[in-house]
Amino acid sequence: MKKTTLKQVADQLGVSLSTVSKALMDSHEIGLDTKKKVREMAEKMGYRANPYAGHLHNQKSHTIGMVVPEITDNFFNKAISGAESVARERGYHLLIYVTHEDVGIEEDILHHLQNGRVDGVIMSLTSQTREFDHIRQLMAFSIPVVLFDRVCHEIETAKIVTDDFQSGFSATEHLINAGCKHIAYLSISDCLSIDSRRKQGYLEALAKHEREVAEPHIIQCDADEVANHERIKQVLRGRNRPDGIFSSVERYALTTYNVCQEIGLKIPEQLKLIAFSNLQTAHLLHPSLSTITQPAFDMGKQAAEILLRHLGRKTDYMMNQNIMIKSQLMERDSTAIRQ
Amino acid sequence: MKKTTLKQVADQLGVSLSTVSKALMDSHEIGLDTKKKVREMAEKMGYRANPYAGHLHNQKSHTIGMVVPEITDNFFNKAISGAESVARERGYHLLIYVTHEDVGIEEDILHHLQNGRVDGVIMSLTSQTREFDHIRQLMAFSIPVVLFDRVCHEIETAKIVTDDFQSGFSATEHLINAGCKHIAYLSISDCLSIDSRRKQGYLEALAKHEREVAEPHIIQCDADEVANHERIKQVLRGRNRPDGIFSSVERYALTTYNVCQEIGLKIPEQLKLIAFSNLQTAHLLHPSLSTITQPAFDMGKQAAEILLRHLGRKTDYMMNQNIMIKSQLMERDSTAIRQ
Repeated sequence: MKKTTLKQVADQLGVSLSTVSKALMDSHEIGLDTKKKVREMAEKMGYRANPYAGHLHNQKSHTIGMVVPEITDNFFNKAISGAESVARERGYHLLIYVTHEDVGIEEDILHHLQNGRVDGVIMSLTSQTREFDHIRQLMAFSIPVVLFDRVCHEIETAKIVTDDFQSGFSATEHLINAGCKHIAYLSISDCLSIDSRRKQGYLEALAKHEREVAEPHIIQCDADEVANHERIKQVLRGRNRPDGIFSSVERYALTTYNVCQEIGLKIPEQLKLIAFSNLQTAHLLHPSLSTITQPAFDMGKQAAEILLRHLGRKTDYMMNQNIMIKSQLMERDSTAIRQ
Repeated sequence: MKKTTLKQVADQLGVSLSTVSKALMDSHEIGLDTKKKVREMAEKMGYRANPYAGHLHNQKSHTIGMVVPEITDNFFNKAISGAESVARERGYHLLIYVTHEDVGIEEDILHHLQNGRVDGVIMSLTSQTREFDHIRQLMAFSIPVVLFDRVCHEIETAKIVTDDFQSGFSATEHLINAGCKHIAYLSISDCLSIDSRRKQGYLEALAKHEREVAEPHIIQCDADEVANHERIKQVLRGRNRPDGIFSSVERYALTTYNVCQEIGLKIPEQLKLIAFSNLQTAHLLHPSLSTITQPAFDMGKQAAEILLRHLGRKTDYMMNQNIMIKSQLMERDSTAIRQ
């Protein structure tokens, strides 16, 4: 296939080479109509930009990276859709990078992104992330980073969160009101901001109702599904087993369903369960699952909007700010009061 | 931040500039030990490659793109994990692009990938894709494409599929054996290979049992969830309603659950349901869902392996081949025989 040159595109349109070049680089000097014409002709003629030469003049890739710990969790899935809806509208591409809760992969990805492959990054930390130099280093290369959900106060930037403390408090109080006396908390990570806030809400609700309920019971889970299954099974088979569980994430709630199915424990009669979850099938489960439903789509959308607004301004630093969007408690059968 | 030069890295290590440069470009002329030392020193000194200059010499991005119609479906989710497991092991990055079943977005993404951002592409078509010029064009730029699941015979390349015909046949026969007399098929698209094969299996099973069962009943669904809900509701409320449904994809099975919940139709007593699905919660639904479970992870893994093997060989054309990995019928309560 013989290569079409920019000159040929310019000749065909009867405009200067410089106009074509600027139009394809999305320069503000060129009108929208002209840009459209040039792009259409370039495409029609099969012109292929040399991306590297182009980038030397114009470092913008019109791409943003979204770094998430997993995509099997419906929260991240919906947050990606939210960010995509904004990116697409503004002519940006969204690339999705999955860290699989592995901080080594997270560091590797961020290091890789230093090369200017993306103009900015939206990210949610892994459950192992305790140091933040890889984020600082990326930002030092003038690649702005917006954090969402799993954020850290150590990095000064825009952060989109939900009301984790209040939701943790409400979820726990909901279990107490449903009659639970011994409530366990399934914790995702002792170094994640969302976990510590949810746990704090849990602890304060227990403290408020200390006359009625037992001491806190925190079950530390991790990314190892088989180990989590065993942990939860051991607790639910133990002598002093909980009658209520508040799960910090969707995954452990499903593990709890599996364990209950295995050992024949009835939800909600013998165990009430509520979880942070955006599971599409929550209302179809047996029994349907009571959830704290996060504004996942809106959180992703907001993160992308803030990032793109910042990229448009071309300032060096992102404003340090916390934006909070509320979650919703959805009462279903897994916490119902049955005689 | 003052930039570290390659020369400074070379001086620090006491090796030539050319050695450092070749090591960072992963040249076969440099030993693994030296590469490791150079990379570590470069990283330690904060050396940032000019990716564009680098790429001019070495066009490899060590990145593969994976283009999927959606990520909310568990099939694609697991296929992505499978491809990632291979990519990571070989030091490749995997970028995920979502077309949202929109052929316009698919074309746009493939056009965008012509610039050499990725070395190769793994893709599954949208339910609207009827023309394949955008794929041919990408391949003409020497960017190989491996298709998986939703493939087309028009493009000559490697394709990873499952036994859609046989699975469609087995699913339908399973419903017939469970006593269904009037079985509807929920079709995702009349232009997708997977749909036509699954439908063909359905039709042949009906034909084989023509004495016992009614005529075929095909319900054409699409990406519009609200419309699908109405379509299915109308059929299930109709006079001659089906007593069995075979759904070509996971999503429509969940819509069927929702409709049944809404109109008070009991699964499996009044309606038996089986679907192609990799839903993690299939066994936790009320009732648990009988599925044709695809080897999603393995399909993604195979696709990546074939693509990377091809990239290693540097031949121009991908072998035209179909690789078939079998699905599994998982019998659960939604097709149980109850008196």
